[in-house]
Amino acid sequence: MSTTNETDSRKTLRLLMPQWQGGYNPPYYLGAQLLNWLAPASDDIQEEVPVSLHTEGIEIEKGTYARADVLEQLRHAFTILHKHQPDRVVVLGGDCGVELAPIAYLNEKYNGDLAILWVDSHPDVKLPDHYIGQHAHVLAALLGVGDEEFIASVPKLVEPDHVLYVGLNEWSAEEEKVMNQFQLNAVTPEELVNDSSAVLNWLEKLRPSKVFIHFDLDVLDLREFRSLLAAYPETYEEMLRKAPKASSMETIIRVLQDVAKAHDIAGLGITEHFPWDAYRLQNMLQRLPLLGDINKKDKAPYKNPEMG
Amino acid sequence: MSTTNETDSRKTLRLLMPQWQGGYNPPYYLGAQLLNWLAPASDDIQEEVPVSLHTEGIEIEKGTYARADVLEQLRHAFTILHKHQPDRVVVLGGDCGVELAPIAYLNEKYNGDLAILWVDSHPDVKLPDHYIGQHAHVLAALLGVGDEEFIASVPKLVEPDHVLYVGLNEWSAEEEKVMNQFQLNAVTPEELVNDSSAVLNWLEKLRPSKVFIHFDLDVLDLREFRSLLAAYPETYEEMLRKAPKASSMETIIRVLQDVAKAHDIAGLGITEHFPWDAYRLQNMLQRLPLLGDINKKDKAPYKNPEMG
Repeated sequence: MSTTNETDSRKTLRLLMPQWQGGYNPPYYLGAQLLNWLAPASDDIQEEVPVSLHTEGIEIEKGTYARADVLEQLRHAFTILHKHQPDRVVVLGGDCGVELAPIAYLNEKYNGDLAILWVDSHPDVKLPDHYIGQHAHVLAALLGVGDEEFIASVPKLVEPDHVLYVGLNEWSAEEEKVMNQFQLNAVTPEELVNDSSAVLNWLEKLRPSKVFIHFDLDVLDLREFRSLLAAYPETYEEMLRKAPKASSMETIIRVLQDVAKAHDIAGLGITEHFPWDAYRLQNMLQRLPLLGDINKKDKAPYKNPEMG
Repeated sequence: MSTTNETDSRKTLRLLMPQWQGGYNPPYYLGAQLLNWLAPASDDIQEEVPVSLHTEGIEIEKGTYARADVLEQLRHAFTILHKHQPDRVVVLGGDCGVELAPIAYLNEKYNGDLAILWVDSHPDVKLPDHYIGQHAHVLAALLGVGDEEFIASVPKLVEPDHVLYVGLNEWSAEEEKVMNQFQLNAVTPEELVNDSSAVLNWLEKLRPSKVFIHFDLDVLDLREFRSLLAAYPETYEEMLRKAPKASSMETIIRVLQDVAKAHDIAGLGITEHFPWDAYRLQNMLQRLPLLGDINKKDKAPYKNPEMG
């Protein structure tokens, strides 16, 4: 059901936030820029959060990698949101950490009457004492647990019963504790295969006036879509064997279309685009004759990014 | 050895040619645009051959798919080359068919004193009576066999002893006949692994004043780089088993750098970028709420592109 009679005069902000520090992997920067390049043109307000690609001397503080940079980028995102006061926000990430400011902003604007669909393979409720990447702390911070300075940036905490995981596939024991603490609801990939009713029924019961969709591309199956961290070429054959079956693109598109036909979408964030091929190709072009510098040496060799 | 005392005042043209019809697969269009987006910025003259993405009603004439479009694009490329009269050309394709005009132009300009390194998994000497895609006819046309109208566009045919295959891995019986007819030389992927001497020695014997490098990305191993036609996600696991071991990116970069340090590179063409993920992601974004049209149906489902 749609609860809106508003017109299309509502203001939409498209926020490009190429943050990579939350996932401590520079290719998220290129992933964000490429996502933005591929997105349909629009008349929305467009802004970009400045993100440095500087990787030297970055520290882990209070359990979070590049904490100072991530906080600075978070503040910048809030400044943009407060300047434009948009009704709707599209966020193009970057790592999942980019969702903190837009969700916090919209949840305050709509006075908590905002459902959050967390379309993601992971629950993103890790705490800094277990994991250094802010990209997995983000939903915890919105719920009020974790690093106090990140929590303090959220003017109105998200109510746990306003969150639904969609396509959830993998979580840690520490995350399970937080999920149980808040009694968070989840729809598995299997429940999405035939139709979108599991998601639509949950929304029908909650009856929110607005919906925010967080879409981490890693909810997609790496057998179909390989621009994901986990689809690291050097270990991909092993991943083909061990990665759990995830959702197809057509399934996720259908779910999001079904939700948008019945509800008022106030925000959409797309995150964790990890374009292995584009990153390698860009590096190669910089070293070829007539295009780049033929004396340029190999860049630092790839490591499995999960290894840090 | 370098045979040049010229300065950097030489004129370089960067020609974007998003031709897809030669490989009868529209994603080559996006592949060219993305390659161009990823390439380092430069002060070179930049031009783009207009290419239509219209796919309806395209016909096979005289054995070639979209023959009229491909000829039109070929003429347009020649017009640009003749207008600027560049000393050096970078071609960003597009399918391999994009190499016809720049090589023909440079071979005439340098009066045949141009070596051609065909860095490619395939020999590209198919004839229209066996195969419809102009992207595999292109070197045959430069040597003077195949469709007469394409051959007539080449003002000075390439001498067979000026061609060296680099990284050649797969060819058909029909192609082998042409390769034998012209006694074409080849360096296998294995011969490139340790050093570039097989290529450098051949060049040292020929002593050309200029070198053109054709670089079909499919010379790379699909286990490392997956934005290739053959890395079709739905049959990729099978390809992992059956595709011959090809060259690594670092191997090809090193070979091209070694050649460029000893010879005067007059042209570089990069072709057959087939960005599966970017193509699918672009399609998805066009159908998501706040970004695209939520009523947009599935586009035509994927077919294995090798099947046409």
